Amino acid sequence: MADELVFYSNPMSRRRIARWMLEEVGAPYRVEWLTFEGSIKSPDYLAVNPMGKVPAIRHDRTVITEAAAICAYMADAFPEAGLAPPTNQRGDYYRWLFFAAGPLEMAVSVKAFGLEVPKERERSIGSGSYESVMDTLSYAVTRHPYITGDRFTATDVYVGSHISWGLQFGTLEARPEFTAYWDRLKDRPAYLKAKALDDEEMHRQLAAAKG
Amino acid sequence: MADELVFYSNPMSRRRIARWMLEEVGAPYRVEWLTFEGSIKSPDYLAVNPMGKVPAIRHDRTVITEAAAICAYMADAFPEAGLAPPTNQRGDYYRWLFFAAGPLEMAVSVKAFGLEVPKERERSIGSGSYESVMDTLSYAVTRHPYITGDRFTATDVYVGSHISWGLQFGTLEARPEFTAYWDRLKDRPAYLKAKALDDEEMHRQLAAAKG
Ligand SMILES: N[C@@H](CCC(=O)N[C@@H](CS)C(=O)NCC(=O)O)C(=O)O
Ligand SMILES: N[C@@H](CCC(=O)N[C@@H](CS)C(=O)NCC(=O)O)C(=O)O
Repeated sequence: MADELVFYSNPMSRRRIARWMLEEVGAPYRVEWLTFEGSIKSPDYLAVNPMGKVPAIRHDRTVITEAAAICAYMADAFPEAGLAPPTNQRGDYYRWLFFAAGPLEMAVSVKAFGLEVPKERERSIGSGSYESVMDTLSYAVTRHPYITGDRFTATDVYVGSHISWGLQFGTLEARPEFTAYWDRLKDRPAYLKAKALDDEEMHRQLAAAKG
Repeated sequence: MADELVFYSNPMSRRRIARWMLEEVGAPYRVEWLTFEGSIKSPDYLAVNPMGKVPAIRHDRTVITEAAAICAYMADAFPEAGLAPPTNQRGDYYRWLFFAAGPLEMAVSVKAFGLEVPKERERSIGSGSYESVMDTLSYAVTRHPYITGDRFTATDVYVGSHISWGLQFGTLEARPEFTAYWDRLKDRPAYLKAKALDDEEMHRQLAAAKG
């Protein structure tokens, strides 16, 4: 089927990010649920994503993996949703999308593993110190209402998801500017719809597991 | 000066990536050299990049940090260089740019730190296992001559830089497909020019340090 949009996911994943983006765009899509214990490492799914991870999407014959790439791709593939700046004004858009997918993701993971980056390695590791990442994130979310200015973009979906997850699970410091930024995003209809759909599926799977 | 292009760098950095991209685009730029021991953490430079890291570029009044973001930004800002696919065909372009900036960078850093990701955490860490990252990179570089097909793009600058660096310093396995891919890139005039300019500056600084 031409232009079919398939979303590979698991409702228990912190990468609900991609579903939020799908809902922002508003194009119809079909969900394929994968189980962490089984189908996510099946040959069929490894042919989609050799990492054996969700999320992934397939748009017609194009597969996209990596939550941040899915946000960037969808914004460009569905320009009518107005979620990407014009291509000649994408400085902040890319800067903060890659900052969140790189240093922010790495600093938070490294901390969650209880790993201390020795002071003398902060220079060579791309994420530097945890503190400098937090300060840089503060800078990113306080310059304008949204990351790139007055308009919400795909970068807000991605950075906002990191902040929402981080505040909820304590992997980010609860700085007032993080909360204030998230307050500007948290009532978006697309976010609420994606969350409701994932919560529903999560409860369905948990109930089925109980038997 | 309108549309001035400034490149903040240090010649001893593995993020020479950005200079390669600047040379691919061919627009004139001015370099500001920062010292790791000093000016990189100066208030002036922290106002450019609160992370206190290079590379960064400033294009007119827009600052871009993160080597991968600089590649994506430059390709879009200078469309005449033909380094980005049309916006409706960016699946592989974004997928592998974010794969390299996220899981690949993280897996290589974590390994360089001598950190073992415990088997049971591979599911939750975005980079999974080092082996799965290597296998996925093999997949990415063997599907077409270049990452997105028959044409070289900004994603090749970024992925190619990771591979070239990784092969040189042993942070990547020397798989034949990595070498074969790099062989297709390594004689690009822009790469050779960027390398020559950075090598020259590195030797100049080393000689000056000797006194
Ligand atoms: N770098 C990926 C990470 C994806 C990821 O780690 N997904 C987890 C769920 S949150 C997963 O699928 N884990 C299953 C597994 O590794 O077996 C992204 O940002 O999309
Ligand atoms: N995530 C950044 C990492 C940049 C980075 O770590 N740069 C190093 C040089 S290779 C640096 O400037 N270190 C100096 C410092 O941290 O003081 C990117 O990809 O551009």
